[in-house]
Amino acid sequence: MSIKLYGAVSSWNTLRARHALLEKGMTVEEISLNLSAQEQKRPDYLALNPFGKVPVLTEGDFTLFESRAIARYVAWKYSSLGKPLIPDVENSRSIALFEEAASIELTQFDHFAQPLVLKEIIARFQGKVVPEDEILPLLQTLNVNLDIIDRILSKQSFMAGRQYSLVDGFYMPLLHMLLKVGYQGLILERKHLKHWWETVSERPAWKEAVQPLNNLYDTF
Amino acid sequence: MSIKLYGAVSSWNTLRARHALLEKGMTVEEISLNLSAQEQKRPDYLALNPFGKVPVLTEGDFTLFESRAIARYVAWKYSSLGKPLIPDVENSRSIALFEEAASIELTQFDHFAQPLVLKEIIARFQGKVVPEDEILPLLQTLNVNLDIIDRILSKQSFMAGRQYSLVDGFYMPLLHMLLKVGYQGLILERKHLKHWWETVSERPAWKEAVQPLNNLYDTF
Repeated sequence: MSIKLYGAVSSWNTLRARHALLEKGMTVEEISLNLSAQEQKRPDYLALNPFGKVPVLTEGDFTLFESRAIARYVAWKYSSLGKPLIPDVENSRSIALFEEAASIELTQFDHFAQPLVLKEIIARFQGKVVPEDEILPLLQTLNVNLDIIDRILSKQSFMAGRQYSLVDGFYMPLLHMLLKVGYQGLILERKHLKHWWETVSERPAWKEAVQPLNNLYDTF
Repeated sequence: MSIKLYGAVSSWNTLRARHALLEKGMTVEEISLNLSAQEQKRPDYLALNPFGKVPVLTEGDFTLFESRAIARYVAWKYSSLGKPLIPDVENSRSIALFEEAASIELTQFDHFAQPLVLKEIIARFQGKVVPEDEILPLLQTLNVNLDIIDRILSKQSFMAGRQYSLVDGFYMPLLHMLLKVGYQGLILERKHLKHWWETVSERPAWKEAVQPLNNLYDTF
């Protein structure tokens, strides 16, 4: 049954789902929404995702939203395609450490990186500069947390252990956006994080997945 | 091997992990940290969790942090104890919908409820009132998102489907805190959310898990 991905070129959450699909070698039929025209708030789309956000995956009559849930679904369902992106659930400690890393990404990284990127993008489109007092608390927390993540990466090659996993892919879209909007130092001034980034961003599936977003933001 | 839970009575994240352990009928040996005395930032504790946060679970030489990862570990490892708290991973669509619901909890609820509760608690300890302009954006988003969650609960009894699961437990600590700090309306003025709350908060494991926190915050 063919998989469709409803998304938007400008959306890093769409990028997260698209990347996971491409890591599994899946062909992605993507239906692009015009977010500026609020197409994601139209009734027919709200029937797919009541929160009115992208991305949404459909497969026949099955509908799934939230980019990380989509990535997990693809990794489980197509586990036989390519290398595994998620540990075997029979190994309770490996999967526990995968879940620990997945939770860190959301609670210690995304929670602070997402508002920072959003503020920067909105300000640029308005030709303004974000007031420093709105940015500093986010940057302070990110600096503390990325130091800890850098130390974790001094002991293991990837976010959830020795092998590339979905969790690496969970981080990549927002880290890419931080680079785009001028926070290169957050990543490139940390030895292990820089090395990790150089490794994961060379993955062919990532390069293909990020292309549409790069074309859009190439003036940044 | 005996499980230890490093936590704090005042911590809703500790409550989340304690609750999952009790749902599985596990005896919880809890080591309470004094967060005011910054015990969670001491080197011996940072060796358990470099982010310096509670809770942490240890089982022999195995260490795990992030409350949701702890809950998932317990649910997988002790899946044979009591009713399952997580769908069978062989059923890729059920587990996908579980992951969708788990992601909604973090990105559409916790992300906004946590700063709201934190601001209210800090203000109360300082004998102040939180400025309205700090609260309103959080409340507006929570109202929109809880309306959507209320509609989801009009079609299914629990957050991830027809049965109680870990995701219900993920929501409960912060919802309980919202009730404590004066936002009863957020939950009790929504028909399906109110009904869900009345059902899940009657669970014996929850009642036992929440007791220490209630004793602490009984003046709220």
